Amino acid sequence: MEAIEDIIKILKTKQSFVLTTHIHADGDALGSLLALGLALLNNGKKAVMIHSEPVPESYRFLPGAEMVKMAQDLTESFEIGIVLDCTNLSRAGDAEQLLQKAECIINIDHHISNEYFGQINMVETEASATGEMVCNLLVKGGFTITPDIATNLYTAIITDTGSFRHQNTTANCFRTCAYLLECGAAHSFIQHHLYEQRSLQSLRFMVKVLQTLSISENGLIAWMTISKDKIAEVDDSDGLIDYAKSLKGVEVGILFKELDSGEIKVSFRSKSFVDVNQLAAHFGGGGHERAAGCSIKGTLKEVEQLVIRKTEEYLAKRRAAE
Amino acid sequence: MEAIEDIIKILKTKQSFVLTTHIHADGDALGSLLALGLALLNNGKKAVMIHSEPVPESYRFLPGAEMVKMAQDLTESFEIGIVLDCTNLSRAGDAEQLLQKAECIINIDHHISNEYFGQINMVETEASATGEMVCNLLVKGGFTITPDIATNLYTAIITDTGSFRHQNTTANCFRTCAYLLECGAAHSFIQHHLYEQRSLQSLRFMVKVLQTLSISENGLIAWMTISKDKIAEVDDSDGLIDYAKSLKGVEVGILFKELDSGEIKVSFRSKSFVDVNQLAAHFGGGGHERAAGCSIKGTLKEVEQLVIRKTEEYLAKRRAAE
Repeated sequence: MEAIEDIIKILKTKQSFVLTTHIHADGDALGSLLALGLALLNNGKKAVMIHSEPVPESYRFLPGAEMVKMAQDLTESFEIGIVLDCTNLSRAGDAEQLLQKAECIINIDHHISNEYFGQINMVETEASATGEMVCNLLVKGGFTITPDIATNLYTAIITDTGSFRHQNTTANCFRTCAYLLECGAAHSFIQHHLYEQRSLQSLRFMVKVLQTLSISENGLIAWMTISKDKIAEVDDSDGLIDYAKSLKGVEVGILFKELDSGEIKVSFRSKSFVDVNQLAAHFGGGGHERAAGCSIKGTLKEVEQLVIRKTEEYLAKRRAAE
Repeated sequence: MEAIEDIIKILKTKQSFVLTTHIHADGDALGSLLALGLALLNNGKKAVMIHSEPVPESYRFLPGAEMVKMAQDLTESFEIGIVLDCTNLSRAGDAEQLLQKAECIINIDHHISNEYFGQINMVETEASATGEMVCNLLVKGGFTITPDIATNLYTAIITDTGSFRHQNTTANCFRTCAYLLECGAAHSFIQHHLYEQRSLQSLRFMVKVLQTLSISENGLIAWMTISKDKIAEVDDSDGLIDYAKSLKGVEVGILFKELDSGEIKVSFRSKSFVDVNQLAAHFGGGGHERAAGCSIKGTLKEVEQLVIRKTEEYLAKRRAAE
């Protein structure tokens, strides 16, 4: 029997569920959590959605977000624990303890690095988002996809595919979204909350970071730096690295961010041939071929020089090998 | 008989076609033109794709783009003229004359303002893009959607929906994209050419324009200005107005652009309740409820004051009426 069938059976026969997702939750994490939680509640089940942090303000528009409880505030036990969009149980943060007390843990995720920590593991690495898997699960299980559930799942897919720009955009994710719109997903409402709620400080912060843009002599590397004094104002560096990568001819985009710890957080993105996971690994970090990161002790200036030199060496070696 | 069936019959029985699209062509215009042109060529027809301007550099990646001929260079006659994504025939620019000589003009468009200028008019205002209509036409007519055709149609839909962010995003447009991916649309190749080919000058220009951002006291209006000296460097203001509109609490985004003519081009966008078409019309311009524009004689400073005052008046009147 496939994991999905096991899960459907449990959702139908068991009565009490605790659901959670990963720390630093994004749209897919929260959208998946709320969609499955609402579906269980609509079917008369006891279902408590918990998280180790308050729901970030930018995602409080999601239907049901106000029902998410702080994990620390709960002590009771549940029959079934469901963990969504989490590679391992420690990523559930403070919710881990509560989960461990359940009779059975169900693990639903699409990350390739998933550690199969559940008694039942539904891991589909080809899914664009965990939200796509939850939609499939609800449809197969005959659960009604209400407009609220559809809005959560649609948000999950939009955010995890970068509005259908990332490589994980598939025919199946488009078909899922078509179906979710028909179920009543609130397209304009979601767009408004995801893309039209930027703070003035965040925009001004972006302008300052963009002004630090440098490009290597051969045009293949573009990077930007965020010094502590700039972070002090506002810390909204999400997506900024994409501006470096978006430039014509640039293969590697890098963002350097000075942390309070005295370390520099380095994020890497590549377009088509540089394996930035290797680059990050050289400095003790990791990630994927096209997106990776690491933290390095030193001043902004030192780390910038070190990393750019290493990236140039990598590119030179590659060229020599061709 | 529906227009689509008439058109399929003509595509199958006639032998020579001339196809064109609107001036200042965008992704939907060129993607639709190339998709239908390639489908006819693949079926052994004589099909010439013409345009009144060279294909913009940013769209030369589209398969078949090199086959598009300048309308001025052609003198021969064709049985059938096909006009794509054009509200009226004069929008075809220099191609209009050649079209007029055809036995029959087929008009395929999704704009609500379409003037039904053809002998056969397939006008579907609920379609997200003309590319969506062309896909439907090819499927219904039994034409093979090759990877090249799929890449053109997918680009058409991506660009006209703003990567599935605009309100014209529908279940049908998602299903069409699912199908196009299965036909071999080159997702990563398209994303790379649409979003990762920005020039350094264009990014630096954006930063300069963003630095001019002002916000009205009540936070409802945000605007930016482009003075002539900045345009002299590079003229890439596409999409910049969206940054003004993206701010939290802002209802109207405005972009002022100083033209060589001594006029100021004013672009308006609104989020949810201001009819910017009315505002633009007050200054002799026009457009839609959520996107409109006009040109006003005067200095940047004068026009800025005039338009902001008028917009504030409009907002005050609305509030009074509530």
